[in-house]
Amino acid sequence: MATILTLAGDGIGPEIMTQAIDVLQAVNKKFALDLTLESGLIGGVAFDATGEPLPEETLQRARAADAVLLGAVGGPKWDAIERSKRPERGLLKIRSELGLFANLRVAKLYPQLANASSIKPEIIKGLDLLIVRELTGGIYFGEPRGIRTLENGEQQGYNTMVYSTSEIQRIGKVAFELAQTRAKASGNPAKVCSVDKANVLEVTELWKQTMIAMQEQDYSDVSLSHMYADNACMQLIRDPKQFDVMVTGNLFGDILSDEAAMLTGSIGMLPSASLDEQGKGMYEPCHGSAPDIAGQDKANPLATILSVAMMLRYTFKHEESAQAIEQAVSDVLDDGLRTLDILDKSEAGLIQVGCKQMGEAV
Amino acid sequence: MATILTLAGDGIGPEIMTQAIDVLQAVNKKFALDLTLESGLIGGVAFDATGEPLPEETLQRARAADAVLLGAVGGPKWDAIERSKRPERGLLKIRSELGLFANLRVAKLYPQLANASSIKPEIIKGLDLLIVRELTGGIYFGEPRGIRTLENGEQQGYNTMVYSTSEIQRIGKVAFELAQTRAKASGNPAKVCSVDKANVLEVTELWKQTMIAMQEQDYSDVSLSHMYADNACMQLIRDPKQFDVMVTGNLFGDILSDEAAMLTGSIGMLPSASLDEQGKGMYEPCHGSAPDIAGQDKANPLATILSVAMMLRYTFKHEESAQAIEQAVSDVLDDGLRTLDILDKSEAGLIQVGCKQMGEAV
Ligand SMILES: CC(C)[C@H](C(=O)O)[C@@H](O)C(=O)O
Ligand SMILES: CC(C)[C@H](C(=O)O)[C@@H](O)C(=O)O
Repeated sequence: MATILTLAGDGIGPEIMTQAIDVLQAVNKKFALDLTLESGLIGGVAFDATGEPLPEETLQRARAADAVLLGAVGGPKWDAIERSKRPERGLLKIRSELGLFANLRVAKLYPQLANASSIKPEIIKGLDLLIVRELTGGIYFGEPRGIRTLENGEQQGYNTMVYSTSEIQRIGKVAFELAQTRAKASGNPAKVCSVDKANVLEVTELWKQTMIAMQEQDYSDVSLSHMYADNACMQLIRDPKQFDVMVTGNLFGDILSDEAAMLTGSIGMLPSASLDEQGKGMYEPCHGSAPDIAGQDKANPLATILSVAMMLRYTFKHEESAQAIEQAVSDVLDDGLRTLDILDKSEAGLIQVGCKQMGEAV
Repeated sequence: MATILTLAGDGIGPEIMTQAIDVLQAVNKKFALDLTLESGLIGGVAFDATGEPLPEETLQRARAADAVLLGAVGGPKWDAIERSKRPERGLLKIRSELGLFANLRVAKLYPQLANASSIKPEIIKGLDLLIVRELTGGIYFGEPRGIRTLENGEQQGYNTMVYSTSEIQRIGKVAFELAQTRAKASGNPAKVCSVDKANVLEVTELWKQTMIAMQEQDYSDVSLSHMYADNACMQLIRDPKQFDVMVTGNLFGDILSDEAAMLTGSIGMLPSASLDEQGKGMYEPCHGSAPDIAGQDKANPLATILSVAMMLRYTFKHEESAQAIEQAVSDVLDDGLRTLDILDKSEAGLIQVGCKQMGEAV
């Protein structure tokens, strides 16, 4: 028996989570997985109920669980409260406390949605790239940080971008090994592109050098390239299919993974996994809490549902049920069902559905 | 009489500069501008000749000149030399020493090139956005920085992202005022989008708050919005025309301005200006030194030629000659002349030309 903690969070979180839980319960039964589901509080709703965006109780139960499924956090309602209590802090804290240093974000084009993107179809056809983002270090967590008053009376804000060799090696290993696994599955050569700004930032120069040393020592079968973050951001638009696995730090990973997701035109479709050193993980959609459409049954639950598939694959090593979910998602797309975000109004034969109907269809 | 210092730099720098100088001399004569041109060394070639990427002599002459026209710096040849001597350091140092804190990068779609982009034409049709990037602060220049050895023997790299209120106000003023100017010219309402990561980084929270205060006090006619950097990177792909002026720090500006340029499919077309508090400036193409095609007469000189137009406009306040250059560029595009980077092979009637031929045509 294994336990999954579900944390619906804010905005569209609860509605997408309801659909994901239904799907999870369905495969649980069908494949006799013996999974127990619990739910807990995180983000703005947790702050409202307990005064903390990540209550101690949630953290304890997350530690005890075998996996965590997260909806989304944040919203304008909590913009004005003290920084340390904001919903995002709950998310950053749970990542850090659970040691979820490896964030895997897949940007994959669903052929059924090729027209939903603002990119020309030929540029993204067949796109399937994986961004490996370091999630518990870098400028997100670096000290010193804060806002201070200078001698001349004006204010100064400061943050520290910091990485040690071992932090870089740990995430590098994940990237190299996933490149190997993907190469085995696809038959293509294994390749990793490491993104840095080594021409300006010392911290990313260490990053680059560490990646080079790892490749030479342990991963000579993987071809390693390097790209500056500004160029990577351009190349993702110019020719995203040149990449297979990209690995980068927390801040660049935040930006590039959102960009990559948007290329597919279907950020509402993309799941992510955040793993610790034992492969235990938290799974969540790449998109945010979308407060503007919350509670209106407009949200796309597929990214969360596909996060369940990732969970079954990575934490529970149950490929069959993972594929069953992915197949079901593909089938409803084939059937023409679309939530608003992935609806191409110029295409005939599509059926606009709400969050609930989409979840039930899967 | 005014003096312009030209710094060709590395890679394709010399060939694009030759064309830009020819154009500059032509308008100099035609409009009797009385401009004197000098040339100097920067980047890798300067290192090779003097051991410094920004020789003292170049800096002195840049200070004395009324404007600087730069080609591009850097290349694999200088990758292995000591960090402080690399070509990029010369560029960073001249920006900093001359106090060129305001970097203006325009992402404008040339209608003749609408098909060269990987973005669907309807998304970028009419695109004309301005990115105002802070250029002499932030994590590019923040201290402390370096790579140190920790007690446990491993290495740690660190950089500091830092902004003070006055630095933010200075660049904010440029953005708000340019939004006003652009609104006057276009008849559209003035708007600025400030890009930060205030949900995670204190330094950008100060940024955001400072922008809000400025807008309330001095720029109530300009509408101000805020966007997180990851979202901005997505929105630029989804719907770039929602933006008019974007303002952001050095690192986000580096990434977003390259992305915006790539949207137009014609980074080889885009000029930039870097201005000090008196409006004195350095002008350069947005693209890099492209060592892979250097010396092959393949480079696109138009971004550098258009940088000359920006120089005439911003530093010499000579709108007529600036427009003459811009018109000439537009005319050669109308004539179907294309360098390789902007050649759409599926379009009939285009004439592929080299760097030299393109420059001469203008
Ligand atoms: C909500 C925010 C703190 C978070 C981040 O920046 O990591 C989000 O953008 C993400 O990418 O998961
Ligand atoms: C060459 C490099 C140091 C520079 C930067 O990062 O500022 C370049 O990318 C730019 O945008 O002008």
